[in-house]
Amino acid sequence: MNPDIKKERETPAFNVEAVTNLLDGGRDMTERRRQLEALAENDPELLSQPLSFLSQSGCYDNAIKRCARMIQQIEKLGLTDPKDIRLYKRAVFCGRPCPVDLHLGMFLPMLLSQATEDQLQHFFLPAWQCKIIGTYAQTEMGHGTFLRGLETTALYDARTQEFVLNTPTVTAIKWWPGGMGKTANYAVVLAQLHTKGTCQGLNAFIVQLRDLETHEPLPGIIVGDIGPKFGFNDVDNGFLKLENVRIPRTNMLMKFAKVEEDGTYVRPPSDKLAYGTMVFIRALIVSESSYVLAKACTIAIRYSVVRRQSQQTPGAPEPQILDYQTQQHKLLPLLATTYAFHFIGNYVSKMYQNISESVDAGNYSQLNELHATSAGLKAFTTWVVVAGVETCRMACGGHGFSCASGLPELYTNSAPSCTYEGENTVMMLQTARYLMKCVRLVRNGILLEGNVMYLNPAFDNRPRLNPQSVASLVGAFCDRATWLVTHASQGLQSQLNCGKSQEEAWNSMLVELVRASESHCHYVVVKTFAEELEGVQDSGSRAVLSSLCHLYALHGITQHSGDFMQAGVLKGEELEQVSKILRTLLSSLRRQAVPLTDAFDISDTQLSSVLGRYDGNVYSALYAWARTAPLNKSQVHESYYKYMKPLQKSKL
Amino acid sequence: MNPDIKKERETPAFNVEAVTNLLDGGRDMTERRRQLEALAENDPELLSQPLSFLSQSGCYDNAIKRCARMIQQIEKLGLTDPKDIRLYKRAVFCGRPCPVDLHLGMFLPMLLSQATEDQLQHFFLPAWQCKIIGTYAQTEMGHGTFLRGLETTALYDARTQEFVLNTPTVTAIKWWPGGMGKTANYAVVLAQLHTKGTCQGLNAFIVQLRDLETHEPLPGIIVGDIGPKFGFNDVDNGFLKLENVRIPRTNMLMKFAKVEEDGTYVRPPSDKLAYGTMVFIRALIVSESSYVLAKACTIAIRYSVVRRQSQQTPGAPEPQILDYQTQQHKLLPLLATTYAFHFIGNYVSKMYQNISESVDAGNYSQLNELHATSAGLKAFTTWVVVAGVETCRMACGGHGFSCASGLPELYTNSAPSCTYEGENTVMMLQTARYLMKCVRLVRNGILLEGNVMYLNPAFDNRPRLNPQSVASLVGAFCDRATWLVTHASQGLQSQLNCGKSQEEAWNSMLVELVRASESHCHYVVVKTFAEELEGVQDSGSRAVLSSLCHLYALHGITQHSGDFMQAGVLKGEELEQVSKILRTLLSSLRRQAVPLTDAFDISDTQLSSVLGRYDGNVYSALYAWARTAPLNKSQVHESYYKYMKPLQKSKL
Repeated sequence: MNPDIKKERETPAFNVEAVTNLLDGGRDMTERRRQLEALAENDPELLSQPLSFLSQSGCYDNAIKRCARMIQQIEKLGLTDPKDIRLYKRAVFCGRPCPVDLHLGMFLPMLLSQATEDQLQHFFLPAWQCKIIGTYAQTEMGHGTFLRGLETTALYDARTQEFVLNTPTVTAIKWWPGGMGKTANYAVVLAQLHTKGTCQGLNAFIVQLRDLETHEPLPGIIVGDIGPKFGFNDVDNGFLKLENVRIPRTNMLMKFAKVEEDGTYVRPPSDKLAYGTMVFIRALIVSESSYVLAKACTIAIRYSVVRRQSQQTPGAPEPQILDYQTQQHKLLPLLATTYAFHFIGNYVSKMYQNISESVDAGNYSQLNELHATSAGLKAFTTWVVVAGVETCRMACGGHGFSCASGLPELYTNSAPSCTYEGENTVMMLQTARYLMKCVRLVRNGILLEGNVMYLNPAFDNRPRLNPQSVASLVGAFCDRATWLVTHASQGLQSQLNCGKSQEEAWNSMLVELVRASESHCHYVVVKTFAEELEGVQDSGSRAVLSSLCHLYALHGITQHSGDFMQAGVLKGEELEQVSKILRTLLSSLRRQAVPLTDAFDISDTQLSSVLGRYDGNVYSALYAWARTAPLNKSQVHESYYKYMKPLQKSKL
Repeated sequence: MNPDIKKERETPAFNVEAVTNLLDGGRDMTERRRQLEALAENDPELLSQPLSFLSQSGCYDNAIKRCARMIQQIEKLGLTDPKDIRLYKRAVFCGRPCPVDLHLGMFLPMLLSQATEDQLQHFFLPAWQCKIIGTYAQTEMGHGTFLRGLETTALYDARTQEFVLNTPTVTAIKWWPGGMGKTANYAVVLAQLHTKGTCQGLNAFIVQLRDLETHEPLPGIIVGDIGPKFGFNDVDNGFLKLENVRIPRTNMLMKFAKVEEDGTYVRPPSDKLAYGTMVFIRALIVSESSYVLAKACTIAIRYSVVRRQSQQTPGAPEPQILDYQTQQHKLLPLLATTYAFHFIGNYVSKMYQNISESVDAGNYSQLNELHATSAGLKAFTTWVVVAGVETCRMACGGHGFSCASGLPELYTNSAPSCTYEGENTVMMLQTARYLMKCVRLVRNGILLEGNVMYLNPAFDNRPRLNPQSVASLVGAFCDRATWLVTHASQGLQSQLNCGKSQEEAWNSMLVELVRASESHCHYVVVKTFAEELEGVQDSGSRAVLSSLCHLYALHGITQHSGDFMQAGVLKGEELEQVSKILRTLLSSLRRQAVPLTDAFDISDTQLSSVLGRYDGNVYSALYAWARTAPLNKSQVHESYYKYMKPLQKSKL
C-alpha cells in the first residue's frame, strides 16, 4: 500500500465500519451487500477489459453479455427480493446503466400496474423470462416534458378490431427510450388514441417491434439506435417510426381506460394512477445521486493524499495536495454533501412509502407535498452532484481527464439525471407552483403541515445567527426560504397588479421562482441531515457526521451569502465569522477525509478508477493501463504509412 | 429554412455584418477569414464522416490525414502570415486540437528562441518541412505545475561528449505531451542536468524518439499513447520513458545555458527568458475561450427558437423555449459573456504585444502585471466558459446529450483549458500573490499604475450604486475587488500576527485569496468591456453591445451578490432593483439573440452541430444523422446471436 494513504488510515477519529453500517441501514445490510457484490465481482463470466478501450458497439456488446449473465444468475441464485436484485444488478454493471433498465424498471411494472388479467397472462411470463424484452416509448424527438404535445397516433379500426399506429411527422418519431435501438422486441408505446372520430388523449399500447425468432424489425417498424452520446454508451437508446402498424385491440393496456369492440372509449377512474412510479423513480434518483458523488469523492480524496505537488516551505518535501486549503475547500464540502444526500435519499424513500400507504388507504391529502418535494429534491440533488463530480474531476488535475480515473464516465453517465425523469428547471418550477399555492393557503387562514410549516404566520422569531450551532444554521436556511418564497409570491402579485395575465406574471418571475424552490429544497436537506444525526447511536459516528453537517450548512451559507443577506438573516461581520469557522472545520476534517471515503465501502471493482484505488498505487497502475490502450497495439499507427510518410518523402 | 428561425432574423435592431466585422477586427479581416475557411471547407480532401462515429484510432487517423493535407496546402497556397496559418488551421480542424499542435506551437518556437545557430541549421529546415515532427516533453506523470519537481535526468558524460537521459522512477515518465504517442519522431525533453557531480537544474534537450525511415521507436525509448481521455481523442497525448538514451552534447538547446566539452556548465544570463511564450499562450487561451463559448451559444440559442414546448396559455401553440425567462437567464448572460471575453482576449493580446516591445527595449517594469493579469484572466475565462458550455448543453435538454449536438465534444475539448498551461487555482493564486504585493507597495507609499490603481489610497468616494448606469456598475466591481483584496491581505496579516509562518499564513487564507483574485479579474473584464464600447463607431452595434455589457455587469452582481453586500457596495433593496432591470434586459435582448449569434459568423461546417444549423432544420437532420450511426449498420447486433438468443432459447 502507498505509505501516504496508509498513514491516513492509521488513526481515524471514528469507527469506519460503524459508519458503513449506518449508511447501509444496518450491519446485516452491509453483509448482504458485500455478499452480492462478491457474487458479481468473483464471477469469471463478468470480467472485462476497461470499457473506455471499447468502441460504442463493443460497449454495447459487453453490456448485453452482462445482461444475459445477470438474468441467468438472478434465477440460478434465486434472488427474488427487489432490494437484492437492485444491489446485484448494480454490482454487475458497477453502477452503470444497462440496456434492460427500462425492461425491468418500466415495462414489467407497467404490465403489473396497467395490464388486464388476460394481458398479464399473455405477456407477463414471457417478459419475466426475457423472451419478450420491452421498453417504454414515451418521449418523441420534438416532445419531452409536455406529454400532451405527443404526436404519435393510434387510430381504432372497429372493422378489424385493431389499432393502427402511426408516426405522422418527423418530430413524432419516438426518441431516447433505453434498449429500443437494438435490444427490445416489444415496447409500450404512448400514443394519442383516436376512436369514433374523436381524440381521447394519451393511452398506452403494447407493440411488438421485432420478430421473436430472427430479431428483425417487423413490417412498418423503423427502429434503430440514436447514435453516440456524451455518455450512456452501454445503452442503445433508440428511435421508432411507426408506419401503419396494426395491433389487436387487446394490446391497449386496459386495466383502467378501455376501448370496447365497437370503439366506445371508457375513461379511467382517475388521472393520478400513473403518479406513483414517477415519484418512486425520482426518490431513487436522489439516493443514486449520493452514491455517484460518493464515488467521485472517494476517487478525488484518495488521489489527493497520494499526489504531492509544489513546495510550501523551501527545502521541505512536496505536500500532499489535500493539505492545500483550496483542495479541501473543493472536496470536503462535497464529501459532506454526499452524506447529506444519503440522508435525504432515505427521507424521500420513506416519505414515498408512508404516503403510498396512505394513498392505498384512500388518503390523498399528502400527494401534492410528496410530488413537490420529490420533484424539487430530484433537481436540487442532481444539479449539485453532477457539478460536484466535475469539481472532483478537475481537482485531480490532468489525470482526472484520463478515462483511467473513471471520472469522465462517472460524469457523462450521471449528467443525464439533470434532464431525464423531469428536466430540472421544470421540476423546480413544479415545486414553486406548490410553494405559491401554500402561500395562498396561508393567506386564506389555513395552517400548513410538513416541510412548508415555516410559511405559517408568526413562525418563530429567531435570535441572531450563531454559526457554531447547527440548529441555528438550520434556522437560517429556514428564514432564507421563508423570505425567498414570500418574495417570489409578492413579485407574482405585483405583476398581476400591473395587469398581466396569470401566465405572463408567472413567466416574468420564473427566475425568482426557481430561486425560491432551491432555497426550500436546501432547507429541507439541511434540516433532514441535522434531524437524522439525532438518531445515530454510535457516538464516534455521530461526532464526525455532526462536523460534516456543520460544514455542509456553513458552506451552503457562504455559497449563497447574497440570499441570506438579502433575507436579513446574515450581516457582513457574521459572514466573516461563518468563513472563519468553515476554514477551521476544513482543517479539522482534513484528517478524517480518507476514512470518511472508506466508510462508503466502494470496492475497487465498483469504483473502476486507477486514481481511486484503495491501495493508493496510482502511478504504476496508470502506466499499466496506458500500455494496454488501443493505440498501443502497434508501435507505428497505420496513418503514418497512409499520410505522413508520403508527405515526408515528397519533401525530399 | 425553418420558419421560426427565419422570423428571428427578419428585423434585427443592428447591422449583423457590422458586428461581425467588429469582432474580426475590420471588414478586410472578415473577408480574409471567410476566404481561408472556404479553402478548407471546399477542399474535397477534407470531407469526413461525423467524428463521433469513429473509434479513438479512427479519430486519430482522420486527424493525421488532415495534418498532412494542411501541411501540403499551407505550402501550396503560399500561406506565410502566422494569422493566416492560424485561421486556416482552425478551419481545417473546425477548432479541434490536432496532433501537430505542439510541433507548430512549441517545438518550432523553442528551436527559434533557444537553439544555437548550428542547431538551427541542423534541425530547423527538416522540422519546418515536417520530416522532423517534434513535441515538447515537460510534464511528468507525478509532476505538473511545479517544475522544480521534475525527475528526468540528463547526465553529462565528458568521455563521449554525450548526455545520458533517464527516467529514474515511474512518476518521472513523461506524460501528456500532445503528438508524443504516435506522431512525433523528436521531442524537446526537459530534464535535470547533472554535470561534474552537480545538478544544474532544468535544461532542454533535443531527443530523437523514432527512426526517420521506419518510424519505429529507437533503442531505450519507450513511447506510446496514454489512452482514451474525456476529450482530445484526435490527439495522441503520449508517454515517454527513457532508458540510458545517449544524445550528443550538441543536442542541448544552448543559446543561453551551455555545457562545455569538459562538462563545465554556463548559466543562462536570465531566468525570465522563457516567460514570453507562456504569456502568449495564455493570451491565446483567453481569446480561444470566447470562440468556444460563441459556438456553444450559437447552438443553444438557435435550437431554443426552433424547439417548442409546453403551453403557457391553454389552447395557444407551444412557445419557443427561448421565450421562457429561465431559458433566457441561462443563455443570454452567456451570450454577453462571449462578447465580454472577446474584448478581454483582444486586450490581453494587445497588452502582451505592448509589453513585449518594452521588454525588447530593455524595460521589464510591467512584466509582473502582464504575468499576473494573463494568469488570472486565463483561469477566470476558462472556468466561466467551460461551465458555460455545459449550461448551454443542458439548456438543449435531451438532444444536448447527443453527440449530434456538437456540445459534448465542445465541452470535452475545452474542459482541459482549466488544467493545462497552468492549473486554474494555481493561476489565481499567482495573481493573488501579485495583488498582495501591490497592497504592500501601497502601504509603503508607492503609487500603483495599471489595473491595480484601485488599490491606491483614497481611490474615489463613489456615490450609491445606480444599476441603470454601466459606469456605476464598473465602479461597484472595482469596490468589490478593493474590499476583497484588502480583506484577504488583512486576513494574511492577522494570521502572521498569530505567530504563523509566511507559508502557514498563506495556506490558511488560500480560499479568500482566490476569491480576491477572481473579483480582480471580474473587474478588469467588466471595465474593459465598458471601455471598448467607447471605440465602437457604428451606433447600432454600440447600442446592442451596450445592452450586453449592461447585462453582463448586472448578472455578475446577482451571481456574487454576497460579495457586493459584504463589501458594502450593495443593499438588499438595491439588489432587488438590479434583479428587476436584469429581467427587463433579458426580455428586451431576447429578440436580438439569434442575430447576435449570427454575428459570430460561424459556418455550419465549423459549428459541426445538428442543433445549431443556420437553417434551423434540426429534426430531419438529427434523424438523418442517427440513421447512419455505427450501431445501425445492421438491423440485428451480433450480441443478439451471441448472448440473448441462447438465453431466450434456454427458457423454452
